[in-house]
Amino acid sequence: MINVTIWNEGRHEIESDEVRAVYPNGIHNCIKNFLSINDDLNIRTAVLDDTDNGLPDDVLENTDVLLWWGHMAHECVPDELVEKVYNRVMRGMGFIALHSAHFSKPFKRLMGTTCSLKWRDGDRERLWCISPNHPIAKDIPESFNIPVEEMYGERFDIPTPDEIVFMGWFKGGEVFRSGCCWNRGLGKVFYFQPGHESNPTYHIPEIQKIVTNAVYWVAPGKVIPEVECPWVPSLEEAYDGPNK
Amino acid sequence: MINVTIWNEGRHEIESDEVRAVYPNGIHNCIKNFLSINDDLNIRTAVLDDTDNGLPDDVLENTDVLLWWGHMAHECVPDELVEKVYNRVMRGMGFIALHSAHFSKPFKRLMGTTCSLKWRDGDRERLWCISPNHPIAKDIPESFNIPVEEMYGERFDIPTPDEIVFMGWFKGGEVFRSGCCWNRGLGKVFYFQPGHESNPTYHIPEIQKIVTNAVYWVAPGKVIPEVECPWVPSLEEAYDGPNK
Amino acid sequence: MINVTIWNEGRHEIESDEVRAVYPNGIHNCIKNFLSINDDLNIRTAVLDDTDNGLPDDVLENTDVLLWWGHMAHECVPDELVEKVYNRVMRGMGFIALHSAHFSKPFKRLMGTTCSLKWRDGDRERLWCISPNHPIAKDIPESFNIPVEEMYGERFDIPTPDEIVFMGWFKGGEVFRSGCCWNRGLGKVFYFQPGHESNPTYHIPEIQKIVTNAVYWVAPGKVIPEVECPWVPSLEEAYDGPNK
Amino acid sequence: MINVTIWNEGRHEIESDEVRAVYPNGIHNCIKNFLSINDDLNIRTAVLDDTDNGLPDDVLENTDVLLWWGHMAHECVPDELVEKVYNRVMRGMGFIALHSAHFSKPFKRLMGTTCSLKWRDGDRERLWCISPNHPIAKDIPESFNIPVEEMYGERFDIPTPDEIVFMGWFKGGEVFRSGCCWNRGLGKVFYFQPGHESNPTYHIPEIQKIVTNAVYWVAPGKVIPEVECPWVPSLEEAYDGPNK
Repeated sequence: MINVTIWNEGRHEIESDEVRAVYPNGIHNCIKNFLSINDDLNIRTAVLDDTDNGLPDDVLENTDVLLWWGHMAHECVPDELVEKVYNRVMRGMGFIALHSAHFSKPFKRLMGTTCSLKWRDGDRERLWCISPNHPIAKDIPESFNIPVEEMYGERFDIPTPDEIVFMGWFKGGEVFRSGCCWNRGLGKVFYFQPGHESNPTYHIPEIQKIVTNAVYWVAPGKVIPEVECPWVPSLEEAYDGPNK
Repeated sequence: MINVTIWNEGRHEIESDEVRAVYPNGIHNCIKNFLSINDDLNIRTAVLDDTDNGLPDDVLENTDVLLWWGHMAHECVPDELVEKVYNRVMRGMGFIALHSAHFSKPFKRLMGTTCSLKWRDGDRERLWCISPNHPIAKDIPESFNIPVEEMYGERFDIPTPDEIVFMGWFKGGEVFRSGCCWNRGLGKVFYFQPGHESNPTYHIPEIQKIVTNAVYWVAPGKVIPEVECPWVPSLEEAYDGPNK
Repeated sequence: MINVTIWNEGRHEIESDEVRAVYPNGIHNCIKNFLSINDDLNIRTAVLDDTDNGLPDDVLENTDVLLWWGHMAHECVPDELVEKVYNRVMRGMGFIALHSAHFSKPFKRLMGTTCSLKWRDGDRERLWCISPNHPIAKDIPESFNIPVEEMYGERFDIPTPDEIVFMGWFKGGEVFRSGCCWNRGLGKVFYFQPGHESNPTYHIPEIQKIVTNAVYWVAPGKVIPEVECPWVPSLEEAYDGPNK
Repeated sequence: MINVTIWNEGRHEIESDEVRAVYPNGIHNCIKNFLSINDDLNIRTAVLDDTDNGLPDDVLENTDVLLWWGHMAHECVPDELVEKVYNRVMRGMGFIALHSAHFSKPFKRLMGTTCSLKWRDGDRERLWCISPNHPIAKDIPESFNIPVEEMYGERFDIPTPDEIVFMGWFKGGEVFRSGCCWNRGLGKVFYFQPGHESNPTYHIPEIQKIVTNAVYWVAPGKVIPEVECPWVPSLEEAYDGPNK
């Protein structure tokens, strides 16, 4: 079983009729629904306004994959929690930053850059897959349309991705590295650009498949209890024969 | 002219006779001396115990390349200064982290990982150049010995480097990615492992040449006043002909 | 089922008593033996002196993962076969180059570089894992000794690997990028340095585990019948609504 | 001085009135003209139908940077010449592949992939710079239009670039990695997509600046007479003190 926690800011859905019309139970529950067809995923949701911002230590420690959607309230996430999320990724947790989470504290903490970009509401996007043999691209067509999506345009101020899986084309004239992978510590990180709160993007089957693939891809291969910076004895002085 | 600031913690040299014997004027002045043969470098030094920790705003803003040596007092560097250094790199300043600065706050801030490693005093290192056509490797032999140096061993918990220029071999049995390059924002970052405070590493001509090459390589190609996340109009709607 | 073909030059084992003592049934059968504990692998072997050099079209087309060991007879592999192997990798086949296959025609064809290196028989190697969360590193210790192995040293003239999983330390003073991953076309490529014909390297459990992990990692995610360079109509002119 | 050789197939200009109208003296001379304002470039041109296809050994050996434009006659370039160009890049020569040279023999030889892509004549392109601090992007705006250019679209079957400098947006709905850098041997390689024979692309100032920047970037940092695969003695057995 992979323990998945879907974290959502969850405020747009409360404050905006328009957003609630698209995601009546919140973005987190929409994502939970489409992930739930997979029997090997043990899925929780959490929102900013839950106790401990939805991520008390026991939840975070028992999370293998954390999805993060945030936008209007990035600053309400306590720095202490950000450090805990960062530390958990270092020890092996997978992290998926969705759409406006490009500017979330945990994602910026993991990137070490501003994660700035250009934006404009209400454009049309065509998503292109440039790494068709990547696990996150499994069963995804070479390109497909997202009828209405927020334009995110280059230059996206991110570190060079370890792998670029998707690139976005926008009718208004922009391009974007829309699906990017990084290794951070023992954790894997995936950023995925589509998913504006007032557009029904998470209802699109291809988008659901990509998010699902990403959950499996960032799931930890190895987890460690803590990271140290150890003194070590000389291996050569200790060497006394084959395979020691 | 390239404005270079050499920042040194500067406390080992005060507290330890052994270190002072190797660097009587401090590591920063040793580095300044060998860099000073280059007429196009305008060099300043700064130490932790200077006013404003040696990096008041006007100095930082007028620095093109910042070298950083720190070890025993990483925690004494104020978080506010770390954010300023990080922000300056985003806007184009080059940053060179030397030896134990792998655990300095600015370097960790830029990497987004723990930067942990293995270590042991008093080993012998052979430094190998694996990217002989890289500007930082100019006029550096394929390999050379550092008679006594602190062993830093893998796994070095860093993001995948954009380029690895040097790899270190240690007599005790370890290997290390000893010279690594990253892009961060508009700034370039170089980490260089040799340079323990009680070893005369910065007196070695090849080491001096590498640090000098690195200064030129991280020097900014482009500098911007600030990073924004701008709304932009549709380029296509505004398009009215060639080259608009 | 994953169709695995282990290709071995197979001449050292015939010509040399020393090599036959280590691999009485050939390197290919040693590898087949340890891979065979996996029920989902359908394993064939092939040697240079078989009909069609062991790789007639129907075998190659039905191979998902090709392992390649060669050394003294690289030039005996026909260029036509090299092109077929290359073409098969482009369409999705995984390729694992073992030890002296760094100089095999198919590997050099896929790399686009000379794949030159330094070498010396009979050294001792310590293999370090620098990407512990990589699938090829699963259940592999941080480092382990290979008591006698041929030294392969930098500079290894390869393209920048997409991922470096292992680095080798040699007692004689050298380092090496010993386990490297590349994407080529739709295929994945892994190079693994240990495996000299007169050393019992493939009898070491950790080595067997790494080769096994690599088979699963390079196994194709996607296979296509052929690569074209197609003219395409404008997607925008054809666009007539959501998801078209 | 940097010795630059501009190689052009040169047949479109002879066979087509349309192409000759755009490049009356051939694409090679158009490029030579705009490069010639740089006093430190020593520029030659060569075309396919010259003696020795324009690249006799003494010319190739004395070339630091080779630009290559080809399209309709890729197959007329002898394999022996391709091997010489490849070998020269291994030893340090820079190589710039322009537009339809994505399918030229030397470029494919250096990449190790099919270099396939999608295409369509007569689209409009907007070129985006995603690495503004890269030397090839010096003095280039964040984006600019190419009013008429051949669409080249993803998936572009290339190895993961070491650096992506430009991405192309096409009005018809496609995206492309339009400016890419690789290291190959001691040589640097740059591919640049704009430059269709019947479009006046090489007359655009920004395009001229990018090609010029690329010449300086791929210019060799180090050149060697030949690549070997040498046996070497143990460095440790030979070690007898500091810096030996």
